[in-house]
Amino acid sequence: MRAFGDAAARVAPVDQMAAAKARQLHDRLLKPPGSLGALETLGVRLAAMAGECPPPLPDPAHVVVFAGDHGVHAQGVTPWPQEITRHMVRAFAGGKAAVCVLARQVGASLGVVDVGVVGGVVGGPGVERRTVRPGTADLTVAPAMTREEARAALDVGADVAAARMAAGARCLVGGEMGIANTTSSSALLALLLDRDPAEVTGRGTGIDDAMLATKVGAVRRGVERARRVSGGPPGPLDALAEVGGLEIAALAGFMVGGAAARVPVVVDGFIAGTAACVAEALAPGTQHFMVAGHRSAEPGAGVALAHLDLDPVLDLGMRLGEGTGALLALPLLRAAAAVLREMGTLEDLDRS
Amino acid sequence: MRAFGDAAARVAPVDQMAAAKARQLHDRLLKPPGSLGALETLGVRLAAMAGECPPPLPDPAHVVVFAGDHGVHAQGVTPWPQEITRHMVRAFAGGKAAVCVLARQVGASLGVVDVGVVGGVVGGPGVERRTVRPGTADLTVAPAMTREEARAALDVGADVAAARMAAGARCLVGGEMGIANTTSSSALLALLLDRDPAEVTGRGTGIDDAMLATKVGAVRRGVERARRVSGGPPGPLDALAEVGGLEIAALAGFMVGGAAARVPVVVDGFIAGTAACVAEALAPGTQHFMVAGHRSAEPGAGVALAHLDLDPVLDLGMRLGEGTGALLALPLLRAAAAVLREMGTLEDLDRS
Repeated sequence: MRAFGDAAARVAPVDQMAAAKARQLHDRLLKPPGSLGALETLGVRLAAMAGECPPPLPDPAHVVVFAGDHGVHAQGVTPWPQEITRHMVRAFAGGKAAVCVLARQVGASLGVVDVGVVGGVVGGPGVERRTVRPGTADLTVAPAMTREEARAALDVGADVAAARMAAGARCLVGGEMGIANTTSSSALLALLLDRDPAEVTGRGTGIDDAMLATKVGAVRRGVERARRVSGGPPGPLDALAEVGGLEIAALAGFMVGGAAARVPVVVDGFIAGTAACVAEALAPGTQHFMVAGHRSAEPGAGVALAHLDLDPVLDLGMRLGEGTGALLALPLLRAAAAVLREMGTLEDLDRS
Repeated sequence: MRAFGDAAARVAPVDQMAAAKARQLHDRLLKPPGSLGALETLGVRLAAMAGECPPPLPDPAHVVVFAGDHGVHAQGVTPWPQEITRHMVRAFAGGKAAVCVLARQVGASLGVVDVGVVGGVVGGPGVERRTVRPGTADLTVAPAMTREEARAALDVGADVAAARMAAGARCLVGGEMGIANTTSSSALLALLLDRDPAEVTGRGTGIDDAMLATKVGAVRRGVERARRVSGGPPGPLDALAEVGGLEIAALAGFMVGGAAARVPVVVDGFIAGTAACVAEALAPGTQHFMVAGHRSAEPGAGVALAHLDLDPVLDLGMRLGEGTGALLALPLLRAAAAVLREMGTLEDLDRS
C-alpha cells in the first residue's frame, strides 16, 4: 500500500484563511451579497482546497473510469451479462459511451483503467491494464478479495491520481464501470455506515421488484457474513475486502490521491459516493476536497452524500455512473472559480 | 408592433415526431434506458424544438441583457440607487459583471440593449441604444407606460432576436438589468396569473422585513390600480403597460422571436420567468421553446415556472438575474444534444 499510504499521509486540512478571503471577496463583488447562491459556496470551497483566493480554475480536468467485475453477479442481481463490463471498456476506448461524449463536451480528458475485468481488456491509447485480479469472488459466500488485493487496488487508484497530477491535471473526476457493482456498493455502504441493506439498495440500471428482492437478499447475506467474520462492524479496509469491488477500491485510492494533491475531486453517483466514504474512512479529511457532482437517483447515493456532508451541485435524476454526473458539474466548478477571479467589485463601480 | 407581430405569427407547434424519434433513440443508446434522467427529457425537447433528431447543438449561443429603469423606485422598494442600472450597463460593456464572466466561461457571446435606462447609457461595442422611454412611470400611481410604448418594447426584443438569428445564433439567452424590476415583475405576475401580491413578492437583491412590507404594499397598490383601470383582470398587453417594465417587455419579445426561429430560449430567474409568462400569453406556444435554466430563490420564479410547466435544469439558490442562471444551464443543453448526436447504440455493442 505504498502509493495509497503516501497519499493518505499527505491529506492535509483545507485552508480556512483562503476560505475566509473568498467569502470576503464575494461580499465585495459587483452583485448583491449571496446572490450567486451555491456558486458562492462552491467558490469558497475551491479556495479552501487550493489554499489560495481567488482559486485556480479546475483545469485541465481529467476523468478516469475504473473497471472491474463482481462475483456476486452469479446471484442474479442484474439482467446484464458480466461481459458487458469488458464490452463497455471497449466502447470507452472507442469514444461512443456516455462518459466519452460528456468528457468531450465539458473539455475533460478521459482515461480507462482495468483493475479487474473478467477476461481482461485490450490495452491501447487511453486504456491502462492494472489488473489486481480478474473480478472479485461472490461476496455472499466468501470475501470479495483478500486484504492484500484491496490494498493493491487502493494503490492503483492513488498511483493513477499521482500520474495524472504529474501530467498536469488540476481536477480529478472518478468514474466506474462494473456490472453488478451497485450490489457490492450497497453491501459496502451498509457495513461502513451500519445501515440496513434495504435502505441502501436500489434498482441500479433499472431492475424489477423480483430482482430487487433478490438483490437486497444478496446484499444482506454479504453484510451478515462480513459482520460474522469480523465479529462486529468491520473497519473500512476489512469491509472493502469482504464485500467491496476492485474498481471501488481503486476509486477510493484515486480520491485520496486527489486530496493529497489539494485538487478538487468530483464525486459521481452511488458507487463513487460509496468509494468516497471508504476514502474518508481510510484518510480522514479527504471529504473536504470532494465536490458532489450530482444527486444520483439511487437511494444509497443520498445516504453517502449526507454522511460526507456534501451538497450535490446537480439533481437531474441520473443513474448511469461512468462519471457522467460528475462531468456535468465541471462547468459549474469552473464558473465558481471564474466569478472570484474575474468579476469586478462594487468599489470599481463607484469609481467608474 | 411589426417585428413582434411577425414573430408571434410565426410561432408554430413543436415537432412531436422528432420528439418521438429522440425518445426511441434514447432507448437504444449505450446505457440503461432512462438512466440519464432529465438530460434525456431535455434532449427530447431540443429535438422537438428543432424539428430534427438528433437535435443540433445549441451553438452559437447568444445572451442579451435588456436594461431599463422603473418609476416605482421612488416608493423605496430597494436600497440600491436608480443610477446603478446605468453603472451596471457600463460594467457589462467592461466585461466585469457576473453575466460577462459566465458568458465567457460557457462560451456565449453577450450583447446589451438599453430600452429605457434613466440618463441613457453610452453606446459602443456590444451596447445597443434602443430607448423606448427613459424609465417607466411609478406603477403605484399611473400606468408604467402607454400601450404603444409596451408594443414598441416588445418590438425591440423581437427585432433584436431576429438580428441575432440572422447573425448565426442558434440559442438565445435572455437577461435583464433594472433597479426595482422585481417590484414590477411581482405586480405583473400577480395580474397575469391572478395571484395575491404577497405570494409573488420576494426580497429581490436582499431587503429587510420593513422594506419587504413597503414593497408588497407598492405591488398591491399597482395591482389594484391596474384592475380598477381595466374593470377586472387586464389582458397581457394591458398588464404589461400598467405595471410592467421596458426591459421585461423587450425580454418577452426576444423570447417570442427565439420561438419563431425554432431555437431554444433559455429562461433565467424571476424577471425572465415573468417575461416568459407575458410571451406565452401574447404568443401561445412560445413556452415549448423555453428551457428554464434554473430555479431562482425568488418565490415568484417558482410560480412562473409552474404556470409554464417548465422544470428548471439547475437549482443553485441564485437570485442575481442578468441571465446568469440561464447561462449556467447552457453546458447541459449542449450535453443533452451531444448525447443524442454522438453516443453509440446497444446494437453497436453487440456487433463489437
